[in-house]
Amino acid sequence: MQRQPPTPFTRRSFLVTGAASLAALATRATEIPQQLGTPRRAYGERSPYETSVRYFRDSATPAAGSSRTPLQDLYGIITPSALHYEVHHAGVPSIDPHQHELMVHGLVERPLVFTMGDLRRFPSVSRFHFLECAGNSGGEQVGRPGITPQRSHGLLSCSEWTGVPLRILLDQARLKAGASWLLAEGSDAIRLARSIPLEKALDDVLVAYGQNGEALRPEQGYPVRLIVPGWEGNVNVKWLGRIHVVDQPYMSAFETAHYTDLMPNGKARQFTFVMEEKSVITSPAGGQNLFGPGFYNVTGLAWSGRGKITRVEVSTDEGKTWQNAQLNAPILSKAITRFSLPWRWDGVETTLQSRCTDDTGYTQPTRAEIVAVRGLHGTDHYNGIKAWYVHRDGEVKHE
Amino acid sequence: MQRQPPTPFTRRSFLVTGAASLAALATRATEIPQQLGTPRRAYGERSPYETSVRYFRDSATPAAGSSRTPLQDLYGIITPSALHYEVHHAGVPSIDPHQHELMVHGLVERPLVFTMGDLRRFPSVSRFHFLECAGNSGGEQVGRPGITPQRSHGLLSCSEWTGVPLRILLDQARLKAGASWLLAEGSDAIRLARSIPLEKALDDVLVAYGQNGEALRPEQGYPVRLIVPGWEGNVNVKWLGRIHVVDQPYMSAFETAHYTDLMPNGKARQFTFVMEEKSVITSPAGGQNLFGPGFYNVTGLAWSGRGKITRVEVSTDEGKTWQNAQLNAPILSKAITRFSLPWRWDGVETTLQSRCTDDTGYTQPTRAEIVAVRGLHGTDHYNGIKAWYVHRDGEVKHE
Repeated sequence: MQRQPPTPFTRRSFLVTGAASLAALATRATEIPQQLGTPRRAYGERSPYETSVRYFRDSATPAAGSSRTPLQDLYGIITPSALHYEVHHAGVPSIDPHQHELMVHGLVERPLVFTMGDLRRFPSVSRFHFLECAGNSGGEQVGRPGITPQRSHGLLSCSEWTGVPLRILLDQARLKAGASWLLAEGSDAIRLARSIPLEKALDDVLVAYGQNGEALRPEQGYPVRLIVPGWEGNVNVKWLGRIHVVDQPYMSAFETAHYTDLMPNGKARQFTFVMEEKSVITSPAGGQNLFGPGFYNVTGLAWSGRGKITRVEVSTDEGKTWQNAQLNAPILSKAITRFSLPWRWDGVETTLQSRCTDDTGYTQPTRAEIVAVRGLHGTDHYNGIKAWYVHRDGEVKHE
Repeated sequence: MQRQPPTPFTRRSFLVTGAASLAALATRATEIPQQLGTPRRAYGERSPYETSVRYFRDSATPAAGSSRTPLQDLYGIITPSALHYEVHHAGVPSIDPHQHELMVHGLVERPLVFTMGDLRRFPSVSRFHFLECAGNSGGEQVGRPGITPQRSHGLLSCSEWTGVPLRILLDQARLKAGASWLLAEGSDAIRLARSIPLEKALDDVLVAYGQNGEALRPEQGYPVRLIVPGWEGNVNVKWLGRIHVVDQPYMSAFETAHYTDLMPNGKARQFTFVMEEKSVITSPAGGQNLFGPGFYNVTGLAWSGRGKITRVEVSTDEGKTWQNAQLNAPILSKAITRFSLPWRWDGVETTLQSRCTDDTGYTQPTRAEIVAVRGLHGTDHYNGIKAWYVHRDGEVKHE
């Protein structure tokens, strides 16, 4: 193969010329199906050859736990709804949308109850946003690095969400003086509740009923959930049943006992809502193999709860040098951005890393920088640079 | 309800005050599930309460025909892959991706055969593009208007497609002098084949293996199809097995007997690839009912095979006046753009229409303008303004 930039190296590609070409064609002819295929379907399914699934361990409390998105198997920025990560604390309730209601009350002039039909009649917007569990990639901080992108960073997904801006519903209810926080409560058995500052609620929060073009999936809050762009997944309350407008945070279990960040001095940071920028290479990555020296397309995901990704740098030489990766358009605020960099592996052991910068100018820190400030106890809101190690035999590992 | 612009009218919303509020809360408490919900799933499914499906009529030749996307049930711009429209001419082949190959041959220096593994190792791009059958909305031209958005315009869908730019594969094969067209051939039983000018192939055509984050669905060409942005669906060859580089169009059955536009003089336009701009209101629309005078969010879809939608105008008064609708960001080239306009129905019979303009400056024509040029015989590439009729009882119909 002659040099031409970029020169993808294709392992099984081969040259065919003249007679060989005709022979290949003749072979292919026998592969063409001789019979008609299957007919149309009312609602499609994926090919039986596709087997990628969410990852979770069985547990004695199957209704409480998480499942992880197979990031290394995804294309583009959309997470198929069937593979969106899950975190449930009391299982997935089965809700009849015709019976479901959303109440808005508290420090408002007009307490209101909305049916799903009501919600769908308001002006709606659709936006692409990532969701990420606060604990995503937390194992990296405490020295238990994930062995694949799914295991290390799979509490992350990205969807097109559709719903009514929460500020429209609050306008309808008419806020009273003193309103400064609201409590969002889910209709699951545990009534998961989180406090959200009113400023954010009036900014870009959606009361969402659509996900990737259709209704929310049950695991993502059907029939309605809060989408709080860029903030930790837990505050994006699923199966939303009640919004209580109040004058101070509610101090629910999920903002006192959980979802706080323990610091080295023994105190815990509370209400650390924003998921700061992070990136991860999804290929080549842990659990994968390089077939030998040659061309590889390094690709991965970057995202920031503060806005748009402006730059992703990739190092293929153990951090000695960094190159700007190409960002796939459109680059959207508080959504996943896919990056890629052509790379030619020379067959020598090396390390692959990525680091991103967002439009606030902030650049993703190293693990050492985070540990120096936060210590080794906290496992929420870790966003350090992730390294994958390429071994001489082509195996890519987390160590 | 007091006036406040825009003032959504919510049919079942009601005011609750004081004791009523507490009573409502008590009622809600009984609705909260008393038991844990269902556990995590490896691969999710939609709620059993969601029943929207593709539309098709049973036929004596079930492997050949189309199914239509339920546009009126969709949110945002993404079409769920399970609801993407279908047009098959020999059914859906079952293809083992580990056995599938793509041959590139003809006027090239190096004929090449690519496995799916080869294709995935090239640099890839992801882009949001609509697909639309050339015949979509053709019934409007010939006086058989669709009774719902699904029936009138449902041969339209939009996905995030991922693949390798075709020009990269052609660069690998090295085009010979004289190469000016290529034939793309599917691996279905009929070996559907279409000729594509080389200029387009080198511009923005993708050899796509990803759809909405996961592998293509079988009905959309699994494991690999051509995505020819903005061009009629039929040239986006599914189950792609062969690309033959040639010096003239192949004159396949699908560009001579079919997919040509019969003109009033008895001649047919051939190779009319581009799907010109079009729009359709999906709500309120045929098959739906208004619950009475009050606020409605008029929403619909606009798209252009030539580029980006720059404006959508909506008339709610039988075409007397037109207002600019709001366009939901991001507005992407050769993708669907969702528009919306707040509207207060006064209870009088009226007509709802939309017309769009793209970044070439071209504005969607009326049916009369199209019929004056093309007559009543052609049913492909019709893009006239669609009207929905609001009757006094609130019923919205196609007439």
